[in-house]
Amino acid sequence: MTDALGYAATNADTPLAPFRFERRTPGPQDVQIDILYCGVCHSDLHTARNEWNNTLYPSVPGHEIVGRVSAVGSQVGRFKVGDIAGVGCMVDSCQSCASCSDGLEQYCENGFTGTYNGPVAGGENTYGGYSSKIVVDEKFVLRISHTENLAAVAPLLCAGITTYSPLRQWKVGPGQKVGVVGLGGLGHMAVKIANAMGARVVLFTTSPDKKQDALRLGASEVVVSKNQDEMDAHRDSFDFILNTVAAPHNLDAFMALLKRDATMTLVGAPATPHPSPDVFGLIFRRRRLAGSLIGGIAETQEMLDFCAKHGIVSDIEMISMEQINEAYERMLKSDVKYRFVIDMATLQPA
Amino acid sequence: MTDALGYAATNADTPLAPFRFERRTPGPQDVQIDILYCGVCHSDLHTARNEWNNTLYPSVPGHEIVGRVSAVGSQVGRFKVGDIAGVGCMVDSCQSCASCSDGLEQYCENGFTGTYNGPVAGGENTYGGYSSKIVVDEKFVLRISHTENLAAVAPLLCAGITTYSPLRQWKVGPGQKVGVVGLGGLGHMAVKIANAMGARVVLFTTSPDKKQDALRLGASEVVVSKNQDEMDAHRDSFDFILNTVAAPHNLDAFMALLKRDATMTLVGAPATPHPSPDVFGLIFRRRRLAGSLIGGIAETQEMLDFCAKHGIVSDIEMISMEQINEAYERMLKSDVKYRFVIDMATLQPA
Repeated sequence: MTDALGYAATNADTPLAPFRFERRTPGPQDVQIDILYCGVCHSDLHTARNEWNNTLYPSVPGHEIVGRVSAVGSQVGRFKVGDIAGVGCMVDSCQSCASCSDGLEQYCENGFTGTYNGPVAGGENTYGGYSSKIVVDEKFVLRISHTENLAAVAPLLCAGITTYSPLRQWKVGPGQKVGVVGLGGLGHMAVKIANAMGARVVLFTTSPDKKQDALRLGASEVVVSKNQDEMDAHRDSFDFILNTVAAPHNLDAFMALLKRDATMTLVGAPATPHPSPDVFGLIFRRRRLAGSLIGGIAETQEMLDFCAKHGIVSDIEMISMEQINEAYERMLKSDVKYRFVIDMATLQPA
Repeated sequence: MTDALGYAATNADTPLAPFRFERRTPGPQDVQIDILYCGVCHSDLHTARNEWNNTLYPSVPGHEIVGRVSAVGSQVGRFKVGDIAGVGCMVDSCQSCASCSDGLEQYCENGFTGTYNGPVAGGENTYGGYSSKIVVDEKFVLRISHTENLAAVAPLLCAGITTYSPLRQWKVGPGQKVGVVGLGGLGHMAVKIANAMGARVVLFTTSPDKKQDALRLGASEVVVSKNQDEMDAHRDSFDFILNTVAAPHNLDAFMALLKRDATMTLVGAPATPHPSPDVFGLIFRRRRLAGSLIGGIAETQEMLDFCAKHGIVSDIEMISMEQINEAYERMLKSDVKYRFVIDMATLQPA
């Protein structure tokens, strides 16, 4: 075993604080990574505070990890000490079910092992990226070909792949008009990626003051979704809509903007249900409503390579480890453009 | 103009009764059909009683029409006097929008003309198949290659195509496990057609007493959807589910039975909303919820030919025209196996 330092929640009501623990000694197929940066996802907050009623404490969140390889097992072929590497939302899966065989470990039929709060043989839960180092099976380690701004690469490992995967699944590309609902951590990545895929991107927001930012990020047009006239002008015209908003809202307002046979895909799950979608709106244009969860490992690598090629990173605000609790409060007020990233060099023992 | 006799509702509260009106003299592209049989669709009842708040009176329902050609226009090439022909839910569409160009007149972006209650230039509404004859543009007339049991062919024109179209759209075929929710007019056609397409069909019903009938119609298995153990045994296992139930119900119970990436398609629209579907159920298996409306004319012809080849017709109960009001009451109690068809030879003036 090897000593590690992290930041952990010990229960739902206490701020995160320094936490000493051990990582396993790298096995033959393991890669040990000294963590440089870790993005802050809203799931981190949900888990730290047990808002999904499934948190195992102590809980060390973080699944947008970029670091430097500091040790490799004897059978590791793709990484060597000194390489820059990434880890996303998963660190293991069964590798034998139909989904794993299809490279879709996120849909592992036996349940993938989350980078944090996941099951570990022997009883402890997995500890995530708010920590000094992590040891991960090579199959779940990603190559990073970005050569600069590595802190801003970290959010690609969750926010990037969560938006890239459905954009690819529903074949977004040139000649298409694609909607992105919401301009937060996920939405701002979706705008950048869909634009790089060649689509004309329309950003939907309830906040008129996000307009300039959305255009800067790659949107061709911004629609204030509370303005019915603006919405009506887009009826029956979208090839695809990626809806990144987790708060309950009227889905029909966006479904009505889809062309015949087009899909709106949800990547946020509301704590209480959305109003029930109008079935006539589905039937009369053969429209589809779908969901999507992160992406598989191979697709995550594809996304990282795509983003490196197109110069895409996240827009971030760097914080020190001890600012994490304050950052959570700001996230709850949507006061971040567009992702907090922890500089892990600031991690200090108590 | 040519005299016609029909059965019409004159307002929402009065029984249907004999009604004299005129059909247009066939133009160069028109086919005049002496109606032999007309199926009774639940939409007929909704319209007669103005339950969708859009009924134009007098209203002559009926859009599952089989008859014999009694006159053709000079430019009609596909039909001659004496041929058996069918008319379904549509008698016209713009023929110029993207959907019409794709042979999907049911999604005509300028609105198709319904066989009844549709707009007619000059102000009158279209009158449907509860009548002695009908005059329809050749493009919307279907060839019937069934050589017997023509009364039971009539319901294919709506119930048949409404189920065939989504089964084809979502590529149902051999090696697949397909669910059909509900065993009514639509559901019993779906069971027959999906079975003929080579799929293994599982019928979901709330009525245990429908089991033997469903097996006879082609289901391999019947699941009583109120039995949670039976439902749980099918989790994550369906390639496609066609949901024919219009009454509001819990969609999640069926969504949970879909494989990753599989779709449940709704062909019934509830008068009040279904409970809102669980977004986690969509996200964690990338599942899709869709709707579908009848089918295009070319696909309706394909369906009729497919059904003729496979010996598929509807299970019907023949009624006389004057029994229509009683039949409506029985439909409301689901007391029909599985479609009423009017023998139009029984149509008499008042």
